Amino acid sequence: MDIQTLLPGFLRSANLCRYEDGRILILDRRRLPFEQEYVECRTVEDVASALSAMVTQGGGPLETALRTMIMAADQGRDLDEAAALLASSRRTNRTMAHALEGLLESCRQGADIRMEVARILARYDSCYEKMSYYGSALISDGAGILTTCFAEHSFLLSVKRAVMEGKDVRVYVNETRPYLQGARLTAPALHEMGIRCTLVTDGMGAGLMKGGLVSLYMTACDLYMECGAVVNKVGTLANAVAAKRYGVPYYAFALEKSPDRELELEYRNGVEVLEFCGKRITGEGIDALYPAFDVMEKDLVSGVVTPRGVEK
Amino acid sequence: MDIQTLLPGFLRSANLCRYEDGRILILDRRRLPFEQEYVECRTVEDVASALSAMVTQGGGPLETALRTMIMAADQGRDLDEAAALLASSRRTNRTMAHALEGLLESCRQGADIRMEVARILARYDSCYEKMSYYGSALISDGAGILTTCFAEHSFLLSVKRAVMEGKDVRVYVNETRPYLQGARLTAPALHEMGIRCTLVTDGMGAGLMKGGLVSLYMTACDLYMECGAVVNKVGTLANAVAAKRYGVPYYAFALEKSPDRELELEYRNGVEVLEFCGKRITGEGIDALYPAFDVMEKDLVSGVVTPRGVEK
Repeated sequence: MDIQTLLPGFLRSANLCRYEDGRILILDRRRLPFEQEYVECRTVEDVASALSAMVTQGGGPLETALRTMIMAADQGRDLDEAAALLASSRRTNRTMAHALEGLLESCRQGADIRMEVARILARYDSCYEKMSYYGSALISDGAGILTTCFAEHSFLLSVKRAVMEGKDVRVYVNETRPYLQGARLTAPALHEMGIRCTLVTDGMGAGLMKGGLVSLYMTACDLYMECGAVVNKVGTLANAVAAKRYGVPYYAFALEKSPDRELELEYRNGVEVLEFCGKRITGEGIDALYPAFDVMEKDLVSGVVTPRGVEK
Repeated sequence: MDIQTLLPGFLRSANLCRYEDGRILILDRRRLPFEQEYVECRTVEDVASALSAMVTQGGGPLETALRTMIMAADQGRDLDEAAALLASSRRTNRTMAHALEGLLESCRQGADIRMEVARILARYDSCYEKMSYYGSALISDGAGILTTCFAEHSFLLSVKRAVMEGKDVRVYVNETRPYLQGARLTAPALHEMGIRCTLVTDGMGAGLMKGGLVSLYMTACDLYMECGAVVNKVGTLANAVAAKRYGVPYYAFALEKSPDRELELEYRNGVEVLEFCGKRITGEGIDALYPAFDVMEKDLVSGVVTPRGVEK
């Protein structure tokens, strides 16, 4: 299974981010699916700014940071300094930080940086492929799968594998306000991959479970904690709670477990909630709140799909 | 308590709908809060079309239909025929249908139609006032109240009364996709009434309850069934289920109980989900679903606020 050929175009390694003619080109996910534009970066600092500005997200920062390290080496930059700058651009992205540490360690031991980056990226592809086996095994013939936000490779490939195995599947996609990752990224990705999908608003999940259209809930997670709780985009908790009430299993996808720690859940700028694609949706003088993440307690999680299997 | 003076401008009787110079003028709620425009109707048929097209909703059709009956009488129209036409414009609006039946009966017994319409509208105002007493008694000092869609008079006046009694209150308003009644109507109404409010997306309720910001959930309901279940705008169920898990009481507001019946829950056009104000939010070829209502089972409902008290 060459997972790269199964992925939608904008997730393929060659499109997501390129190191070309001395520059890093990052596909701007904020404009998808309406425009396909690349942000051009000539220095490590440019890349760190682009990552901070959310030009790419999910697995995008990891891949971008690794390729940027090649550019830094070619420019004769101090690699430790470059890695620290990239890691600090997205403090909650532990996967990117770990990968950068691993790369530095290998380079210190004399590895070729180009070979090493290729090896790390291939290792992630292999993880995604394993997760797609475990994920597809959870999907029954006739399943209606609800998802929130954009769960990327592991989820998309799990569903694709289920479909390739002949299972009749439909994915219900929460639009995921305020950034609309579900509407802008997940639904077009599934459509391009030939998977049947239906867009719904963020408040519709519970009713779809109660009515029997949704029989499975699957999301990525930003954090899979030692205690078994998972952290994901705001909106996930309401569905997970409804899933428990209506007997719908909830599975999250995670590459690795993170140590439990005092969670400081991020509040983003409420202005995002006051607007819809840049257009004001309410009157003047109204406040808004944008808690970015939900924490799902262990009893709400049926299991977590990892490269090592489904953990309960 | 003159409830009319406490309501936001667009809900006041004199603004919501007027019979003036032989025409019915209906405030177009679809354009609020951005534009204040009236739809002009010269015949009963014009009004029925406007009601079908959702120019006004909630208690709007009731008030509009009653004033339209005065126009029909002035135009020498058959009143039974006029009432049937108006009632058929919004088949799920049982309150409007009952009020029209009551008006016809009084007119048959020789009542003056203008006096009778005024009497019926005053009776509803009295109901809203009673409900505001029962509703405000449920609101504690320091309460964070979540609401979905637009619960109109009974809810707004309950919160206003709580604030007038010196209680420190904040209302969290679900934007209520796809029509955004929360963002367009509820939040501006509360703001105009001097009540502190915060706009949130439809997926944020569960997290706000878990985090303790929300201590009470209150909505209107389209149907309060004999069995104790309530029907309301899609998105309500997810919050009601989360409320139960996190120990947050859920109260609905209803003027009256309706007989239980086989519920055929309306599916509206999914195109509404694919667009915001005519702007596409996803790629081409994507399906969408718009189930308009949720049913909240009796065990999810802490009580229903009626003009007779809080029923459990």
